[in-house]
Amino acid sequence: MTAAESTGTLGELGESAALARIFPRLPAAFAQLLGPGDDAAILAAPDGRFVVTTDMMIHGPDFRLAWSTPHDLGWKAAATNLSDLAAMGAVGTGLVVAIAAPASTPVEVLEGIADGLREACSALAPGCGVVGGDLSVSATLTIAVTAFGDLEGRAPVLRSGARVGDVVAVSGGLGVAAAGLRILFRDGVVDGEPDAAAAAALRRDPLVAFQLAPVPPIADGPVAAAAGATAMLDLSDGLARDARRIASASGVALDLSAAAIGSHEALVGGEDHSLLATFPAGRGLPPSFRVIGSVVPGTGLLVDGVAFDELGGWDPYADWNGGVG
Amino acid sequence: MTAAESTGTLGELGESAALARIFPRLPAAFAQLLGPGDDAAILAAPDGRFVVTTDMMIHGPDFRLAWSTPHDLGWKAAATNLSDLAAMGAVGTGLVVAIAAPASTPVEVLEGIADGLREACSALAPGCGVVGGDLSVSATLTIAVTAFGDLEGRAPVLRSGARVGDVVAVSGGLGVAAAGLRILFRDGVVDGEPDAAAAAALRRDPLVAFQLAPVPPIADGPVAAAAGATAMLDLSDGLARDARRIASASGVALDLSAAAIGSHEALVGGEDHSLLATFPAGRGLPPSFRVIGSVVPGTGLLVDGVAFDELGGWDPYADWNGGVG
Repeated sequence: MTAAESTGTLGELGESAALARIFPRLPAAFAQLLGPGDDAAILAAPDGRFVVTTDMMIHGPDFRLAWSTPHDLGWKAAATNLSDLAAMGAVGTGLVVAIAAPASTPVEVLEGIADGLREACSALAPGCGVVGGDLSVSATLTIAVTAFGDLEGRAPVLRSGARVGDVVAVSGGLGVAAAGLRILFRDGVVDGEPDAAAAAALRRDPLVAFQLAPVPPIADGPVAAAAGATAMLDLSDGLARDARRIASASGVALDLSAAAIGSHEALVGGEDHSLLATFPAGRGLPPSFRVIGSVVPGTGLLVDGVAFDELGGWDPYADWNGGVG
Repeated sequence: MTAAESTGTLGELGESAALARIFPRLPAAFAQLLGPGDDAAILAAPDGRFVVTTDMMIHGPDFRLAWSTPHDLGWKAAATNLSDLAAMGAVGTGLVVAIAAPASTPVEVLEGIADGLREACSALAPGCGVVGGDLSVSATLTIAVTAFGDLEGRAPVLRSGARVGDVVAVSGGLGVAAAGLRILFRDGVVDGEPDAAAAAALRRDPLVAFQLAPVPPIADGPVAAAAGATAMLDLSDGLARDARRIASASGVALDLSAAAIGSHEALVGGEDHSLLATFPAGRGLPPSFRVIGSVVPGTGLLVDGVAFDELGGWDPYADWNGGVG
């Protein structure tokens, strides 16, 4: 949508009128004791603890407006933060959302982001909602979500608990988001620039759809915790990089099976937000988890017993080419 | 500092090395059960509830790099969020901090922001610390803080509790931050552009110093709550605009005394982060609060009994001219 087709840009409406358009679209939180409208919100923490994570999405390095719809952006911002909570074994209870956007932004963009936040909460973490936020002006569209979770009396599942002899298992796809991004960079461009019409035609591809609006296995986090997972994390930077994080934090090595992983892209592609966990051997795993390796003595990552040193994933400072589109 | 004088830009160091430079400078939180380094942090909420607020600072509309030092930015980001907690009557327990910065940013800028965060927590909310965060690349330097507070068993002080007959009182200065900004725009520029050398000479002026690194009366929030404040908020958008918010939420009018307020700038200038509160008449006020008016029947804001309609404060979409500097 261009500013000319909009019922108003943020600059035309001003902050208060824009917020009035957004508030009715935001999801309510069961844990909310006081919602938006005062200096701060109040959430219930019946467990006496709460889990918190924060993640920013930036126009350019994290998304292209020619490819992602506003609904995608809201959905992905909620899904990626909820996935970090799930990786601790926590259930999402609330989000606060700070958005900074150019004055020329059509108000429908914020409405679409709110719709995506609402539908992601409803689909991935029912009962979780948006309890507060902030709206600012910026030259760069920026979405900062902070998410809260409840451990429901359980111990958190850290990265440091893997023990030699544990099995390594994953819930969710591997390399799916990276394959979708590769397709977008190959077929979603015209003259080298991200193109909205080209991307729209690609959305029927489930790899592309997952890259734009991922559906991580959020509910499997608390299930894995209850099933005795010894270590767990959210695969945001690729299996290779993130498996090394469990190995390093736990003082062990992870030995993965190439056949179980499937492809090179599954090993080095980021943004899947699948759950990588270790479980004691000889116990049943939750049904959504499949074994891809084992915990062995040593350090770092092995594949079929051989050290695997390729970094994988991406570094925002080393790897962004400055493009926006 | 220019990139050439730096020991490394974010682009040269990459994310991991930059974080290793920042982590040791961050303040620890007493309430922290699990700090940075896993998928999420865990904080204690002994009260069974927690208070949460979020606020973004954006290069351009919210600060100029020619005027504010990195230390100022970290200090102000902590102080303004802690002030929102104080306005609920809560004590700050933790912050998460998401920063997005250009790859050309010297790592010393992030170190300075971390130092400012640490010293603001130490001075304004001892025991509050940074428990997690996110580092991203962006064309626009952006600092998003989410802050958590503990009500220590007290009821929160909302905007909606003012009753006819209450006194209106304030802790902290009025118009101070706006006067500082006016001086910076008048004397801190060369050829109309913000200038670092000109601003450095102005920092001895306490009005300018307060604008760049405000010292809000954070500790007075819980004190006011314990003393029976019926309504309270943090003066971020100017006394006139924020007093109307208490009036509107409470279904009353606030009648302020021009003599007690002092100046027009005290009425319409934003960013003081003083605490505006109402208290039952006839009871002693906490010593840091001074009476500036009373709660009367009606709607909106009066000054010496006459309706005051000037908006004051600022709207980020209507009022930013696009300048950065």
